Amino acid sequence: MKVGFIGLGIMGSRMAANLQKAGHELVVYNRTPEKAEDLVKEGATLASSPEEVGRQCRVVFTMLATPEAVEDVALGKDGFLKELPGNSLWVDSSTVNPSFSQRMAQITLKMGHRYLDAPVSGSLMPAQTGQLVFLVGGEAKDVEEVKPLLEVMGKAVQHIGPHGQGASMKMVNNMLFGQIMAAFAEALRLGTSLGLTEEVLCQTLMNGPGGAPFLKMKEQKLLTRDFSAEFPLEWLHKDLHLAGVTAYEQGIALPTLHAAKELYAQAKQAGLGQEDFSAIYQFVNPKK
Amino acid sequence: MKVGFIGLGIMGSRMAANLQKAGHELVVYNRTPEKAEDLVKEGATLASSPEEVGRQCRVVFTMLATPEAVEDVALGKDGFLKELPGNSLWVDSSTVNPSFSQRMAQITLKMGHRYLDAPVSGSLMPAQTGQLVFLVGGEAKDVEEVKPLLEVMGKAVQHIGPHGQGASMKMVNNMLFGQIMAAFAEALRLGTSLGLTEEVLCQTLMNGPGGAPFLKMKEQKLLTRDFSAEFPLEWLHKDLHLAGVTAYEQGIALPTLHAAKELYAQAKQAGLGQEDFSAIYQFVNPKK
Amino acid sequence: MKVGFIGLGIMGSRMAANLQKAGHELVVYNRTPEKAEDLVKEGATLASSPEEVGRQCRVVFTMLATPEAVEDVALGKDGFLKELPGNSLWVDSSTVNPSFSQRMAQITLKMGHRYLDAPVSGSLMPAQTGQLVFLVGGEAKDVEEVKPLLEVMGKAVQHIGPHGQGASMKMVNNMLFGQIMAAFAEALRLGTSLGLTEEVLCQTLMNGPGGAPFLKMKEQKLLTRDFSAEFPLEWLHKDLHLAGVTAYEQGIALPTLHAAKELYAQAKQAGLGQEDFSAIYQFVNPKK
Amino acid sequence: MKVGFIGLGIMGSRMAANLQKAGHELVVYNRTPEKAEDLVKEGATLASSPEEVGRQCRVVFTMLATPEAVEDVALGKDGFLKELPGNSLWVDSSTVNPSFSQRMAQITLKMGHRYLDAPVSGSLMPAQTGQLVFLVGGEAKDVEEVKPLLEVMGKAVQHIGPHGQGASMKMVNNMLFGQIMAAFAEALRLGTSLGLTEEVLCQTLMNGPGGAPFLKMKEQKLLTRDFSAEFPLEWLHKDLHLAGVTAYEQGIALPTLHAAKELYAQAKQAGLGQEDFSAIYQFVNPKK
Repeated sequence: MKVGFIGLGIMGSRMAANLQKAGHELVVYNRTPEKAEDLVKEGATLASSPEEVGRQCRVVFTMLATPEAVEDVALGKDGFLKELPGNSLWVDSSTVNPSFSQRMAQITLKMGHRYLDAPVSGSLMPAQTGQLVFLVGGEAKDVEEVKPLLEVMGKAVQHIGPHGQGASMKMVNNMLFGQIMAAFAEALRLGTSLGLTEEVLCQTLMNGPGGAPFLKMKEQKLLTRDFSAEFPLEWLHKDLHLAGVTAYEQGIALPTLHAAKELYAQAKQAGLGQEDFSAIYQFVNPKK
Repeated sequence: MKVGFIGLGIMGSRMAANLQKAGHELVVYNRTPEKAEDLVKEGATLASSPEEVGRQCRVVFTMLATPEAVEDVALGKDGFLKELPGNSLWVDSSTVNPSFSQRMAQITLKMGHRYLDAPVSGSLMPAQTGQLVFLVGGEAKDVEEVKPLLEVMGKAVQHIGPHGQGASMKMVNNMLFGQIMAAFAEALRLGTSLGLTEEVLCQTLMNGPGGAPFLKMKEQKLLTRDFSAEFPLEWLHKDLHLAGVTAYEQGIALPTLHAAKELYAQAKQAGLGQEDFSAIYQFVNPKK
Repeated sequence: MKVGFIGLGIMGSRMAANLQKAGHELVVYNRTPEKAEDLVKEGATLASSPEEVGRQCRVVFTMLATPEAVEDVALGKDGFLKELPGNSLWVDSSTVNPSFSQRMAQITLKMGHRYLDAPVSGSLMPAQTGQLVFLVGGEAKDVEEVKPLLEVMGKAVQHIGPHGQGASMKMVNNMLFGQIMAAFAEALRLGTSLGLTEEVLCQTLMNGPGGAPFLKMKEQKLLTRDFSAEFPLEWLHKDLHLAGVTAYEQGIALPTLHAAKELYAQAKQAGLGQEDFSAIYQFVNPKK
Repeated sequence: MKVGFIGLGIMGSRMAANLQKAGHELVVYNRTPEKAEDLVKEGATLASSPEEVGRQCRVVFTMLATPEAVEDVALGKDGFLKELPGNSLWVDSSTVNPSFSQRMAQITLKMGHRYLDAPVSGSLMPAQTGQLVFLVGGEAKDVEEVKPLLEVMGKAVQHIGPHGQGASMKMVNNMLFGQIMAAFAEALRLGTSLGLTEEVLCQTLMNGPGGAPFLKMKEQKLLTRDFSAEFPLEWLHKDLHLAGVTAYEQGIALPTLHAAKELYAQAKQAGLGQEDFSAIYQFVNPKK
């Protein structure tokens, strides 16, 4: 049985490669087909449209940057959903807003298929080494069915709850990341202005009770100012935006989220969108 | 040689008790003398004024809530500094702003004494069990001299740099705590509005890459809504305020710090100032 | 020639009444038909659906609370657009986001009709007295055609530019209102905490160089704390939300807008959504 | 009777010149004496220290940038207060925080003199043309006594209340200015991103209900991007900072004030501190 994989960016290319290494036959699609070359060399079939993926698979993974992109490959003119054989399974690992996931689930079910929102915790390195954590929303039996594939790409599969709750958990997860990273950047800014070095600050804060584990993975970037992207700032900004929209839909106020969101918006405006999101430090404390 | 200890609140009372248990003879002072009772029962001398502490000791610890309170016990009408024998050592473990620490250092040196800013990382439980981390600013030889005392109260003594840098490190540390706690509260708020339970959110987020170690210590408070203070919200708010003032003095902008500061200000206004600072969650997501 | 009017809330009911008084025959629709009673008594035809309005008119006004509501009456199952005779004119006076207006314009033109976004500056009282200002986006000749009707409801018609620019101007207008109102509320809060009276503050500030004209219209509400709605807080909050979404679409950062937006979100959460938006003061400075 | 005037910056030099033109004999002091040249040419006595001003006058005006500067000229080593003849009158027109004004009042009274906090509403042009508005705190009889002098420099003298209330009113006044200016800058930013021109936006918004009168005075600066200072951005930022500190002292939360404050802090960091505060627009929407 062939596995479909649509979206071969930073994350998707590495996730698909892990599926391939584990022996799964892939049908892949990416808007810019060059990104599929390595996979094709190793035997993957390159589809010329999402549609063509749909025709050849009963399980399709999507890993795209925005809800709009997901909707387009699934439901657009060349979308794959309408081509799937009955009772297929669509697993969306993109980071999207929960209300979008729920709408996709409804549409997919109405068309006679099954759906899981299965975004991942972890960025480039965990994607490459198969150490992602899947946060999954949907039916338990569908989670069980797809688990062997997920476990090839990740180290853990957490079934959070019904449709949309994988997306919900991912959203709050990224919101927490984004805010901690911004807070850390401001802490470094204040500390260095007071004469402390970035090295001492990183060492003390990262090993202290406020040292969220992901911060250590950013230490070298912060100290060398080499912000090559593991998780691009513009995607983190998009996630904060979706969290803000979701908060509005839910009728709740999240003032510190919005302050962080606008700081990332300023950094994006300043041209840092395609750097790693830890480049928020470059915005807050420009290298002299 | 007697050791002076001024300020017997949540933290100071436990720190002094550890000094006492290790065999040090204490002279203590607290504005409300009742708080000294346990120490006195175990042999401490209760001074009737900071002055009286100064007369009997060559090492004095202070652990107070605000710069104003520190200045008052040190330099006020009944202040201890003027009474100290020559070349004494004042160790201020209060959380104050760096420019204040530097001013205290200058005044103390001019009076022929020595000064260390030695605030602590860790709150009630680490204070009680001697697991604090001291972040120390000042002369290396003074740090060495007082280390045996500090090691009775803490598990680590980090000499950060010259006068004021202990206070600087503490300030950025608390700023990071306060912002992470607020971000976590908002993440819980958004997550629960989407149908996730507080239990699942805490488990997933606290054990994920954004799970700063101190968050786990707050899990029970968040789940039970028993916010009895380990570190009162109004003190955290004060620390964020001092960080904001310091940022102004340094001519730098810290927008997310200020957003968090105002959220805590709202919570304080709503009557949560004397609860633990994790009660920011109660403000962000009032228990129905 | 009959004029269609859909949406008879606080604003729409008064605007329609002015059209009626000027001798225009109306076909009206409102989700809750009771609100049409006065107009019907004076001779208006009550349609049972938007569709029915479409069948009887060549000019249709809409005045609704959200983009979703506008889309529903225009393009939904019972939408009026599909029923209009060729080359009709739809004038949307709702406050919506510019990208929505542009989409509506495109759809309307494709269906062979004409479209104007014509939101209004001014709330209840100007609506009642025909003193609104129309901020119009679209073709100049369409603006000319409908001007006689607009001038019955307003004192001025400003043709801002092409489709969407009426909506754009309205959006920045309301964003400015919302932020000034919030700033004024905080100014009153700080001033009264310092012992100044609300009366003296209002008099001095409203008559000073910062006294935006609309503030004077809110003086009685602020002083009496009677916040009966001229422009409900939840609508202002919606407008700030749409401005935030538009800023994201445009790739720009607007930090103070978002801070104000979240303050209104908190006020809405606190139950003030249906009060006038000046009730932000009640949130910022609760009546003791 | 000679009148003392200390602080001859943008505002002070013009205010002093108006006193001189009205026939008052001045004794002036400024840290950089060059700024006194014009006044001296017209007959003013240049003092070499604040002390020397104190010795020659019974009424002394101060117009300085910060509370620290005020305290220094009044109470420092060369301060004027200790030199004044008994029952003299000190009128501080600087923009300072109310708690500072109250402290100055107490000290002045204890020394046997009288004090008024008399900050002004209005910047360069009103200072030059004698159109300032004085917001005065203190004793009514002292206000009456000094009114003839104030009326030479201003068009109105408002006795707000007891000591500190002039400063309080000025603080909320500037807070409102600063926030409106930032909101207007963001409105222009959003509007121009949507294709509206700065000219149309200024015209529509400044003449609409949100058009605070001072905005019109900034129109040319915004349109020409010539931000030569009438009221420097760094002073406005200082005032917002003092408002934030005062809010902390009063135990109240002002989230939108702080968001605006940090936007100005960013602009100052970007090198715009000595431009007019309307240069916040240059920061929010950099000229391409």
